[in-house]
Amino acid sequence: MNRQLILAKRPVGLPEKDTWTLQETAKPEIKEGEFLVKQSHISLDPAMRGWMNDVKSYIPPIPIGDVMRAGSVGEVIESKNEEYKVGEFLSGWGGVQDYAVGQSNTGWHKVFPEIAPLPTFLGTLGMPGLTAYFGILNVGQIKEGEVVLVSGAAGAVGSVVGQIAKLKGCTVVGIAGGPEKCQYIKEELGYDAAIDYKNEDVRAALKKACPKGLDVYFDNVGGEILDLALTRLRMRARVVICGAISQYNNTDAIKGPSNYLSLLVNRARMEGFVILDYAKDYKKAAMEMAQWMAMGQLKSKEHIAEGMENFHDTFLRLFNGEKRGKLVLKL
Amino acid sequence: MNRQLILAKRPVGLPEKDTWTLQETAKPEIKEGEFLVKQSHISLDPAMRGWMNDVKSYIPPIPIGDVMRAGSVGEVIESKNEEYKVGEFLSGWGGVQDYAVGQSNTGWHKVFPEIAPLPTFLGTLGMPGLTAYFGILNVGQIKEGEVVLVSGAAGAVGSVVGQIAKLKGCTVVGIAGGPEKCQYIKEELGYDAAIDYKNEDVRAALKKACPKGLDVYFDNVGGEILDLALTRLRMRARVVICGAISQYNNTDAIKGPSNYLSLLVNRARMEGFVILDYAKDYKKAAMEMAQWMAMGQLKSKEHIAEGMENFHDTFLRLFNGEKRGKLVLKL
Repeated sequence: MNRQLILAKRPVGLPEKDTWTLQETAKPEIKEGEFLVKQSHISLDPAMRGWMNDVKSYIPPIPIGDVMRAGSVGEVIESKNEEYKVGEFLSGWGGVQDYAVGQSNTGWHKVFPEIAPLPTFLGTLGMPGLTAYFGILNVGQIKEGEVVLVSGAAGAVGSVVGQIAKLKGCTVVGIAGGPEKCQYIKEELGYDAAIDYKNEDVRAALKKACPKGLDVYFDNVGGEILDLALTRLRMRARVVICGAISQYNNTDAIKGPSNYLSLLVNRARMEGFVILDYAKDYKKAAMEMAQWMAMGQLKSKEHIAEGMENFHDTFLRLFNGEKRGKLVLKL
Repeated sequence: MNRQLILAKRPVGLPEKDTWTLQETAKPEIKEGEFLVKQSHISLDPAMRGWMNDVKSYIPPIPIGDVMRAGSVGEVIESKNEEYKVGEFLSGWGGVQDYAVGQSNTGWHKVFPEIAPLPTFLGTLGMPGLTAYFGILNVGQIKEGEVVLVSGAAGAVGSVVGQIAKLKGCTVVGIAGGPEKCQYIKEELGYDAAIDYKNEDVRAALKKACPKGLDVYFDNVGGEILDLALTRLRMRARVVICGAISQYNNTDAIKGPSNYLSLLVNRARMEGFVILDYAKDYKKAAMEMAQWMAMGQLKSKEHIAEGMENFHDTFLRLFNGEKRGKLVLKL
């Protein structure tokens, strides 16, 4: 049987238990050109919240009644496709279900458990890592000696952003929630400073941690923290808009950055990006990051929950901060 | 005697009559290296409102008790400086006063009444024109065939932005207040469409005027119009932040653009700039614009008020829309 998590309705604010329903269908049969993946891990990412809204975005909303869209990793157990053989491991957009049917050119790509554990291919060597890589290098255009601030600094994307910025010779300040995460990014990931937004006055802490201001702010959270970061921009600073997790479950209007005129005063720019645009360079970037990992310069941490029946509780951890590293659901 | 308009106090919201006081002092004496300008016209620009606040910005606030900072144009009537001779006409930061003392390398530069009337050197061939030029070309990076939206479209900066975009082969939509201004930008300046924000539903009008969205939005106003423009961005659009006149007299917090996540979805950028950074290219740009004017491709319009005693009333016209073209005070 194939257990599938179905999007039952569009949530308003935080998703509730009945946002999804679990159904069982027959294990799918494959046709010529297809292959069957037995999925072992599902990726949980803040962007999933956006895909559940009935709003035009960079990809269409998940239709009601469809399997919940998600990145995944698993093993090929049947194949009528020459490219992908039984016994190989793949990552792709398998959705929240036990078995996914794939075919060529739909985003499935091979992953290698001899390089890193499978969940790492959903995190540092997967979409979050690639998002960090292209966001901080191509959009942020960091240069040696610059001051970089990253929010969500202990998260799947942020933790890689901060480490890459350190690798490139930047001074890196991270904002995270709680003393444990702050200790983690400073002591294990090598950040120069950490700001605990739950227990510190962020405005004062920013002033102290970056007395001369910021060259790059990588924003995963939006809201108040984006607004405070804007007050610290240096000339020609770049603000990379990667996400706005503080706003995703808003039932009111999104809070726009009141201090955006700092862009004018400081001749600065605020720029968004979508990782899908960099697909042709994924492989090269992932290989470079794998090398950094092998050399101990890039650390990866996954928070692994278990069981499709726990999807709802696990999903909420994306927003309540109760996770340590990239959030993955083991099936 | 030298009449001078002195900044007497910092306004909250719109300046009131007692924001400034008029004083008379002796006509200044010049020292070696200096020259004396008898000023004929003073420039009135929205940015002046920002300089009156006690806030760190791209230039220091005007100190209380100082002559009100302003661009100006006038004739050299005495000179102990080899560069600037009696009888030459100059533009510079003379402030709101009858006589200004200048020296080399303080922003004074020659203007030529044989090319255009003196007030034009405070408008299309002065700071507003240069702001338009570098903003739309260097920051907006318009390309032939693109769709350009400009707010404050009949104003000193906006009217030049729109005309340059037309010259470069773009489709140009302007937003202005009232049927008269809308008619002016369409019929005299050649805009493809005009939106009257005072009498039209801007959201619907934008949809109609740019059905396929916008490549560049040149923002002079901020507030609601910026937010609506963000909903119409095309992929890789550029939002040029030039000003935010709707917010300058706010006594509440500035309204940030709630729809800024459109930057993410559309891989777009929002960028600020300050014209002072382009000083080394002023001359080249002004010459190109003078050529366009001579060929009838760039039209200029000044709204000339008279008398230093009318400064306050004239200043308010910047914000209540009661002006037609670049606002200038004749002394």
